[in-house]
Amino acid sequence: MADKGLLLVLSGPSGVGKGTVKSAIVEHKVFPFEYSVSMTTRKPREGEVDGKDYYFVSREQFQQAVQDNQLLEYNEYVGNLYGTPLGPVKKMLAQGKDVLLEIDVNGARKVREQMPDGVFIFLTPPDLHTLRDRLEHRGTESEEVIRGRIAQARKEILVMQDYDYAVVNDTVANAVAHIKAIVDAEHVSVKRVIDDYRRMVQED
Amino acid sequence: MADKGLLLVLSGPSGVGKGTVKSAIVEHKVFPFEYSVSMTTRKPREGEVDGKDYYFVSREQFQQAVQDNQLLEYNEYVGNLYGTPLGPVKKMLAQGKDVLLEIDVNGARKVREQMPDGVFIFLTPPDLHTLRDRLEHRGTESEEVIRGRIAQARKEILVMQDYDYAVVNDTVANAVAHIKAIVDAEHVSVKRVIDDYRRMVQED
Repeated sequence: MADKGLLLVLSGPSGVGKGTVKSAIVEHKVFPFEYSVSMTTRKPREGEVDGKDYYFVSREQFQQAVQDNQLLEYNEYVGNLYGTPLGPVKKMLAQGKDVLLEIDVNGARKVREQMPDGVFIFLTPPDLHTLRDRLEHRGTESEEVIRGRIAQARKEILVMQDYDYAVVNDTVANAVAHIKAIVDAEHVSVKRVIDDYRRMVQED
Repeated sequence: MADKGLLLVLSGPSGVGKGTVKSAIVEHKVFPFEYSVSMTTRKPREGEVDGKDYYFVSREQFQQAVQDNQLLEYNEYVGNLYGTPLGPVKKMLAQGKDVLLEIDVNGARKVREQMPDGVFIFLTPPDLHTLRDRLEHRGTESEEVIRGRIAQARKEILVMQDYDYAVVNDTVANAVAHIKAIVDAEHVSVKRVIDDYRRMVQED
């Protein structure tokens, strides 16, 4: 049964390994998905193709796109603007293709506002996952280290609560396996397939 | 991280193959789960052990259990009552063990009322899934057959909408793979793990 594609948003704290996990999904062809080509004000490098590697635009064009709500999210990095164009993402989803975005937590929050039906996956550091064990074996770490870990964990949990899934990145293979299961499960979730079943019997 | 077990409810229309799918999960050890021992007014057969195969009780004891809300669901079959005791299920879930119930749609509806956090999986017949194709190639089937299929599909869709997942039983292997993915995904869903993360940082 043809259903709408899934918008998969892979995010998590800086340094958690989002890029590595995404690369593993691509390399091992864990599940098929479409790339979203980003828009940027950065100058093209040797060999980069407009519309394939990036949509290369001027700062004025970028700001116009922001004003026209044509970007799902954007941010500035080393003096250049980078953003995710909304139009191509919507088109791919309508064609039944899954789209994977690997973005930081601020970007993910903006995407959630515009696309609440997306599947939001928070990659958590194994530290957070094993914090309980550390707390239970308190004697082995200084109070200061423990306090710092707890403060950091509190921040991450506040972010995590707006996501659908929390995947521990203890090993890339484990994280990838969980993400594959999430994608498979979401494709058969009633909230995603029921409209298609309903249309089927009403079209008659 | 220790979280509460999942109550997995596998249901679907009569004849869809729930029992076969459950047997395949058991036989191939697809994922670990606990059995719920049913209560029944049926007389024990040769070799059946009370508390292992069934809890064998009198009709009066059974009706008392119903009155005391000790059964998650029950029904009558060929003059005997069969039910799922609530206490053992709650205990296994609290111990972090997943429990799988394979029951009919009426039973599943009663379970949903008492355990809304369960994972409700509707096994759909491939007929329903392929109904669209049949409609599109209308000429090959009589109007009457088509109308009958649509009426049946409408009924099944009404039931399905109260479930979390709709898994097509086209082959047992496919259905089992989807159910495994659902179990894996639900175990990392934020709504199930967030309380544990929160407790972890608040206990300090």
